[in-house]
Amino acid sequence: MTLELNAKRLQETMREQAAIGMTAEGGLDRLTLTDADRDVRDWFEDAMLDAGLDVRVDEMGNMFGRRPGTDPHAGTILLGSHLDSQPDGGIYDGPLGVVSALEFIRLLDDHGIETKHPIEIVNWTNEEGSRFQPAMMSSGVWAGEIPLEEAYETRDHNGDRFRDELDRIGYRGDVPAEPQHEYDAALELHIEQGPFLDNEDRDVGIVTGIVGLRWGEVTFHGEANHTGTTPMHYRSDALVAATDVVTQIRRIPSTLGERTVGTTGSISVEPDSINIVPETAQFTFDIRDPSDAVADEGVERVLQEVAAAAEREGVGYEYDERMDAPSVTFPDRCVDAVRSAVDDLGYDGRELVSGAGHDATYMASVCDTAMVFAVSDDGKSHTPQEHTSWPDCLAAANTLANAALDLAGVANPDGVDV
Amino acid sequence: MTLELNAKRLQETMREQAAIGMTAEGGLDRLTLTDADRDVRDWFEDAMLDAGLDVRVDEMGNMFGRRPGTDPHAGTILLGSHLDSQPDGGIYDGPLGVVSALEFIRLLDDHGIETKHPIEIVNWTNEEGSRFQPAMMSSGVWAGEIPLEEAYETRDHNGDRFRDELDRIGYRGDVPAEPQHEYDAALELHIEQGPFLDNEDRDVGIVTGIVGLRWGEVTFHGEANHTGTTPMHYRSDALVAATDVVTQIRRIPSTLGERTVGTTGSISVEPDSINIVPETAQFTFDIRDPSDAVADEGVERVLQEVAAAAEREGVGYEYDERMDAPSVTFPDRCVDAVRSAVDDLGYDGRELVSGAGHDATYMASVCDTAMVFAVSDDGKSHTPQEHTSWPDCLAAANTLANAALDLAGVANPDGVDV
Repeated sequence: MTLELNAKRLQETMREQAAIGMTAEGGLDRLTLTDADRDVRDWFEDAMLDAGLDVRVDEMGNMFGRRPGTDPHAGTILLGSHLDSQPDGGIYDGPLGVVSALEFIRLLDDHGIETKHPIEIVNWTNEEGSRFQPAMMSSGVWAGEIPLEEAYETRDHNGDRFRDELDRIGYRGDVPAEPQHEYDAALELHIEQGPFLDNEDRDVGIVTGIVGLRWGEVTFHGEANHTGTTPMHYRSDALVAATDVVTQIRRIPSTLGERTVGTTGSISVEPDSINIVPETAQFTFDIRDPSDAVADEGVERVLQEVAAAAEREGVGYEYDERMDAPSVTFPDRCVDAVRSAVDDLGYDGRELVSGAGHDATYMASVCDTAMVFAVSDDGKSHTPQEHTSWPDCLAAANTLANAALDLAGVANPDGVDV
Repeated sequence: MTLELNAKRLQETMREQAAIGMTAEGGLDRLTLTDADRDVRDWFEDAMLDAGLDVRVDEMGNMFGRRPGTDPHAGTILLGSHLDSQPDGGIYDGPLGVVSALEFIRLLDDHGIETKHPIEIVNWTNEEGSRFQPAMMSSGVWAGEIPLEEAYETRDHNGDRFRDELDRIGYRGDVPAEPQHEYDAALELHIEQGPFLDNEDRDVGIVTGIVGLRWGEVTFHGEANHTGTTPMHYRSDALVAATDVVTQIRRIPSTLGERTVGTTGSISVEPDSINIVPETAQFTFDIRDPSDAVADEGVERVLQEVAAAAEREGVGYEYDERMDAPSVTFPDRCVDAVRSAVDDLGYDGRELVSGAGHDATYMASVCDTAMVFAVSDDGKSHTPQEHTSWPDCLAAANTLANAALDLAGVANPDGVDV
């Protein structure tokens, strides 16, 4: 059985959510736990109640809507993403996954479909991590990977505490932030935020996993000196050592793999004066690859360059590992469900590994999980220019719906109103 | 006639001034126009009055002490440096030049020497430029190179105005900040702040000029992107372009000259986040060489690297020239006076070009000028570890005294009490 969502309603629902916190440029300013976040939550709660779902909010503000299944022994199928945005983000990053899950419930109702497995749709709190770090905070707490109290005590730039802000908007629920049911499988639809699908003119992405991510910070300690009176061979310039490594971080991925990426996003020096040789230089790196072995090799190469640069400049250094997130490989049965849906719908799909972390990272630690990627025009995201065409939104949402239907199992095939 | 200063009194006078604003580490915290600066000025005024000098303070707080000459047509010989310090500087940078000039006056008195030329000793206000920019501010105003009102309106980090602070410490004088007499020649004794003399175990430096200095700032404009989802070949990374140039600034001097130096002291990126490819990267450069042509060539090479890096990364850029200070070549007659003094005293001197700017830069635009450098142990300066041994202090001060005596001319050779 292959079903298609109501394309017009999908658009309308996307527009409804996008109107809450929309910026002048047509983007979205809906930081987690702000008034705009509260408003979109109110809207989503109403939509879930209207769809007859059993709604619950947990201690982290994660919002679940449950539709019963017919098989009392069948585990729940979990579908969803996040409704919060970057401070100047787009209207698709997150919401397209939540709206598609909601439209899937409405599709089931439209056709009088009962499923063997119960189905839950979810809006995870604070996926973006712009206001409160880390990102994917509340799916992380739910999965038992981040302590609840640690998340509660997190503060934003103004010093406001996560827990207080959650109280303020009225979304600190009573339900423990942990799985309340046996979960059989989870699916998350998200925009790609990269250029692969658009570049190859594909309809939809079949996500087979999430890259391994390594973050590190290196600090070189040289000697501050007068830029005019200190000959070049007398110097131990911390910044020269740092820039030697940063240029190599541009090159290292090309020696490792097709999908390896390496970046320095942050750099600073002390004393930071035009006429003083830098005494201290600090920079970050971010290395990712679908293979953890390759990501580890990338870090190894960076540290070799750090040691070589330190030796050349005669400076000391410290290395601080900031994050080591292993790669995720989604299990075949979930990826197969997505691939079958793409095939059944006649779409031109492409398998790919997500370069970004998603709530699916944590869902995957609780149950079998996979993802569907919608096309991102030009790969743009976290900007008001973020865009996915309506046909591409529909292709991804239809893929999610049919994969979910496959996993949930139709209990009344003869009674379905098609 | 070769004279030697009173070594014990030179030490004592250096210690007297160093006690005013001394830090726990034995360095000096005597920022311009602070209470400590006022206290050392009071001490210096008393010392000049005790030496029978005619004291005047000009509108910029520059303090002059005048000793008359016998020849009414002879121009004045100007000797001095500065008493202000860096916030955590040493006790020699500046004061050794002022104290040596004062001890020269005392030497003349000790020996009953009259000179044909009048002699003035001077303490220039705000040489360091730490609190109020630019450096060498008040010799610059005196020489007519910096407008008085511009200097007056300069504010420090707290928003306090130069003119108000000068009033506060009681050192805004009535005398116009411009040459009040015909100046025949000027000499400045200063510590080298570099390693050449110490490295070659020399006694004293014969400074033949001051390097040409070029300051610039480059800003690259790339594209902010997600570090995980953006393949390497899709990026226009502003920081990679910047670091490509910074590493070349380490190399460029080695292609130009023995004394060429090139430095990046300051660098920053936007948005400055570990997981965002930098959109903007800004850095400074400082290129110096005794030859203006070589310094200009250095800037040219940097800009070639900027253009090449921009092309490689597909980023745009802006270049902002921040300073273009031509080199100074001291005239032979003043350098010869210093060289003769070194020879007469039997010291092992070395000719060198100053890599740093000094008040002598501006004195040289008013009259024939030269400098004497005292040895800096390990070339250290602007730190409490700054050090010049007492024998090296004495060697430089004796050199200054005898060169000054040569320029000033002894009027009563037969009456000198030696």
